[in-house]
Amino acid sequence: MNYKGYLLDLDGTMYRGNTAIPEAVEFVKELKKRDLPYLFVTNNSTKTPKDVAAHLQNFLIPAEKEDVFTSGMATAAFITEQKPNARVFIVGENGLREALSQAGHIEATEDVDYVVVGLDREVSYQKIKQASLLIQKGATFIATNKDNAIPSEEGLVPGNGSIVAAIATASNTLPIFAGKPEAIIINQALDVLGTSPDETIMVGDNYQTDILAGIHAGLDTLLVFSGVTSEEDLLSIEVKPTFTHHSLAEWAFSE
Amino acid sequence: MNYKGYLLDLDGTMYRGNTAIPEAVEFVKELKKRDLPYLFVTNNSTKTPKDVAAHLQNFLIPAEKEDVFTSGMATAAFITEQKPNARVFIVGENGLREALSQAGHIEATEDVDYVVVGLDREVSYQKIKQASLLIQKGATFIATNKDNAIPSEEGLVPGNGSIVAAIATASNTLPIFAGKPEAIIINQALDVLGTSPDETIMVGDNYQTDILAGIHAGLDTLLVFSGVTSEEDLLSIEVKPTFTHHSLAEWAFSE
Repeated sequence: MNYKGYLLDLDGTMYRGNTAIPEAVEFVKELKKRDLPYLFVTNNSTKTPKDVAAHLQNFLIPAEKEDVFTSGMATAAFITEQKPNARVFIVGENGLREALSQAGHIEATEDVDYVVVGLDREVSYQKIKQASLLIQKGATFIATNKDNAIPSEEGLVPGNGSIVAAIATASNTLPIFAGKPEAIIINQALDVLGTSPDETIMVGDNYQTDILAGIHAGLDTLLVFSGVTSEEDLLSIEVKPTFTHHSLAEWAFSE
Repeated sequence: MNYKGYLLDLDGTMYRGNTAIPEAVEFVKELKKRDLPYLFVTNNSTKTPKDVAAHLQNFLIPAEKEDVFTSGMATAAFITEQKPNARVFIVGENGLREALSQAGHIEATEDVDYVVVGLDREVSYQKIKQASLLIQKGATFIATNKDNAIPSEEGLVPGNGSIVAAIATASNTLPIFAGKPEAIIINQALDVLGTSPDETIMVGDNYQTDILAGIHAGLDTLLVFSGVTSEEDLLSIEVKPTFTHHSLAEWAFSE
């Protein structure tokens, strides 16, 4: 297929937990060899692009920090479009904090323009309260992603959707979400990649996040059955992915 | 009116913040003088009955700790009906912890029968995670009350509904609620008061909690316009309170 840009999901597409998916490793090597631009697009806002790239390098996947785009970066870029150098109250971890700071936004606890919420494994009543009070005072509520729970060695643990639910309930306000399945993160990723929607494909294992994000942004999509969504799941879904494969080894690059 | 038992709301009915409502003070004194049984019924699970009684005594309202029934006590009594001496994981404060302990339940962090959630102003990611994992393992999820936000000197701060939203989202499970507007707290309060639903009246300022709780439990209700619900609010409501008064001074005791 003759796409000029590739947006790639991570967990379930490139690897499962701590195990690489060999066909995915070969797939990215092929993209590199063919000089086809690609960007890893992740809803995880806790890690920096450098952290994410290092993780991929462990699997021998060719990845530099410039090849990674997180929901934190999408959020920061979205805010910049509305208000450069905004004052932001942050509920989140290092990855989000760095993304906002590198985009020129200023962390603050009072008189803020935005309350930005990403997964924060040190969230407290105090943080939920402060976020809620600032939203009630008029700050715009924006969340990196809406994942309710995330897999871990302990089982399904609270995701950012859980923290957002607490703040949304207390403030009686729903946020803008930036991450997949929203179009925002895809549009911002295309800006970085430098390709247009009609020449770019979104590749992922999760229909509800990866594929819907691609569809919402007007991209073609490739669903790989290596993670969350199964062939059976697709039967009840109306808007199908452009392509479905059991493995990325099946992908036919144009000669 | 010839009721034999009175269930009384606190904030907005007996006092507003730190200011007593004089007609309410006189009303309770009259109940006491006439030897009519009454019980203060509160959704606040953070305080013990002793704390609540002390607060009322500051306003010169006749109140002993035996006259107070909290959502924490309702939750504890409800659990006892299903499983005496249950193992419970607690997200909550002193009042809830004491209520569960006095009812014979055992606090634990593993292999629990119930996850009990009340307002906890020291809630953390760790607690939300533990609660969610235990619910996913099969513990019954029960919450003292669903108040989304509560008034404070800082403004509307997160109520238990906010904490519950985080745990419900992470665990993909909705709780049983014990507090107003549910019937559970009213039924448990009647057990303590020793009167039947048809000879007891629920008195409060908030239609959505106090009055609905009374209605759900089959009691007559008195809405007093000294707090949350206004006369205008009532216009759009189908099931009206049995009585409405601007002040408790208007209440006609039977001669």
